[in-house]
Amino acid sequence: MTGFAFELTHRDGAARRGRMTTPHGIVETPAFMPVGTQGAVKAVTSDELFACGTQIVLANTYHLHVRPGHELIRDLGGLHRFMNWSGPILTDSGGYQVFSMKGQTKLDEDGVTFRSHVDGSLLRLTPESSMEIQSALGSDIAMVLDHCPPLPAAREAVELASARTTRWARRSREAYRGPGVPFGIVQGGTDETLRELSAAELTELDFPGYAIGGVSVGEPPEAIASVARFTAARLPETRPRYLMGVGRPEDLVEAVAGGVDLFDCVMPTRNARNGTLFTAHGRINIKREQYRSDPLPLDSSCSCETCAHYSRAYLRHLFVSNEILASRLNTIHNLAYYMGLMTKLREAVAMGALAAFREAFLAPR
Amino acid sequence: MTGFAFELTHRDGAARRGRMTTPHGIVETPAFMPVGTQGAVKAVTSDELFACGTQIVLANTYHLHVRPGHELIRDLGGLHRFMNWSGPILTDSGGYQVFSMKGQTKLDEDGVTFRSHVDGSLLRLTPESSMEIQSALGSDIAMVLDHCPPLPAAREAVELASARTTRWARRSREAYRGPGVPFGIVQGGTDETLRELSAAELTELDFPGYAIGGVSVGEPPEAIASVARFTAARLPETRPRYLMGVGRPEDLVEAVAGGVDLFDCVMPTRNARNGTLFTAHGRINIKREQYRSDPLPLDSSCSCETCAHYSRAYLRHLFVSNEILASRLNTIHNLAYYMGLMTKLREAVAMGALAAFREAFLAPR
Repeated sequence: MTGFAFELTHRDGAARRGRMTTPHGIVETPAFMPVGTQGAVKAVTSDELFACGTQIVLANTYHLHVRPGHELIRDLGGLHRFMNWSGPILTDSGGYQVFSMKGQTKLDEDGVTFRSHVDGSLLRLTPESSMEIQSALGSDIAMVLDHCPPLPAAREAVELASARTTRWARRSREAYRGPGVPFGIVQGGTDETLRELSAAELTELDFPGYAIGGVSVGEPPEAIASVARFTAARLPETRPRYLMGVGRPEDLVEAVAGGVDLFDCVMPTRNARNGTLFTAHGRINIKREQYRSDPLPLDSSCSCETCAHYSRAYLRHLFVSNEILASRLNTIHNLAYYMGLMTKLREAVAMGALAAFREAFLAPR
Repeated sequence: MTGFAFELTHRDGAARRGRMTTPHGIVETPAFMPVGTQGAVKAVTSDELFACGTQIVLANTYHLHVRPGHELIRDLGGLHRFMNWSGPILTDSGGYQVFSMKGQTKLDEDGVTFRSHVDGSLLRLTPESSMEIQSALGSDIAMVLDHCPPLPAAREAVELASARTTRWARRSREAYRGPGVPFGIVQGGTDETLRELSAAELTELDFPGYAIGGVSVGEPPEAIASVARFTAARLPETRPRYLMGVGRPEDLVEAVAGGVDLFDCVMPTRNARNGTLFTAHGRINIKREQYRSDPLPLDSSCSCETCAHYSRAYLRHLFVSNEILASRLNTIHNLAYYMGLMTKLREAVAMGALAAFREAFLAPR
């Protein structure tokens, strides 16, 4: 746990504001992590990530294991150096991707066997090998391999997966040798009894941080908020809580109110590439004809590079003309929007004003 | 001709170093213009263009006329503002694109009728309308509409096209109302008699600058160099000379030695997106297996952002993983290479050392 610490600085109801120290710098929480699946947050550089207010990025163990390979990244000085990102990095365990491969995956108690999406070769991931890969990458936060059954699933399946997740978490905890810290992952689907059990079992293993996994797999937003709030309340006060794969701006607001500290999601970056942009006045689909000659910036209240220099008309032109620059300028804006939202949430918690912020944010526009 | 001037500062054999003043700033010549076909140099921003040493960009009249439309750009404050580029812009006439459309084009003495590649609608370009479009865009340098017959062509066809180009140049010169200056275009294929005639006819019209058109349409490099040298020698000393659509680094060196001042080509940007990168030690195809674990920058002698921060191994990983960032980092490097070459050529001319530079540059590696 060298170089890792978490301190809470403010509380507002169930919500918290804190400071997470990692070997590669401090993260003010609640924080959002852009997703750099293949060792790059799509379309943007580290300079732009920093300029948008990004404090920490997520990278995918599965993808980097398959290509270019974790030993190669280790030999080149680790993932931070490889992708030129000097801030903290959290890596997932690879489990989510592997379990999402329908009919390709063979699971046993020791681990999971699957085929590479790149060359079809047979690969195997175990709790120990996932931690070893994440050590080679040099992650600041390594996620344990969990068993996340695709929903809908029978209660027995969720129960078995949850129990296996605990056993795998113990093995991961014992196997991990740094340089960062491991986080456990609570499973249990939407079943509160199972969530409570999973949280208790993992807490006993005393992880430096905890994730709420197995959400954002097709449930309605209310279920995500409810599971997040319920599970967060059953995790140790003094450890960061990370809601995996969530989500929409309104989901973040609800989950922060429920006591969550960390988030990741492809939504801001993927939506950007599809032309869906977040603004203070709601979402914009930039390809719509109504923006054809619109001289305004995307969002007059935004200070990102895109809003500072380009009109909606230009952004629409780039998008309909399939210019690479469209993906890039849109991504910069959406990330700035998400980071701006997290800043506002941190300020609201610090001022004890989260309830008012939440009400205003979720009010119909 | 408000705000436009050209002065020669050095001579070295047929080569020249000069300074071209435009309404949007000064261009040290010889200079290379990156191509921003649709109002964006693919994958990069203006900040990056400046950082690479770009002084002036080219945009395509045909593409911007078809989409989003020149009136729209005019109403939004002109192309400089639309694309957030504060430096000079040269626009082509649209003729090259239109004449490249096989079987789609109907030519008469007054102009040319063609179908939009975007929506198939019937459009028409005349010498006058091309200048009007370029005025609406706000170009610093507007190219006259020329008739560039696809090669190989019979001598009579080249002769007719060349004569029509002169008639159209006269109409363009008379029609153009600013805000920049018009450049004439010498045609004549690879026939020296026709080139000489075309140069003489255009010179009589007293343009602020002259282009050498109808090259880089499939001829061998020696023919390009020869036409450039021959034609440059027949153009007025005191006016800038622009070799359109050329080319490879070695073509630029040869043409500068032959007295050319301005260039444009998609080669650095298109090659970048295809993974072909220019270095001091020759071209690199970044997708090759040999770069898989190569920790070195693309070019140790290059100071661009890409070479400063990323390894060949990372650039290969981005390319084979289809990451958008690959196009971008590769484009930054290739443009820096081209701009660096132009800087070296300007220095060599200023020092009277171009012959030595050329010999060293063209020596087998």
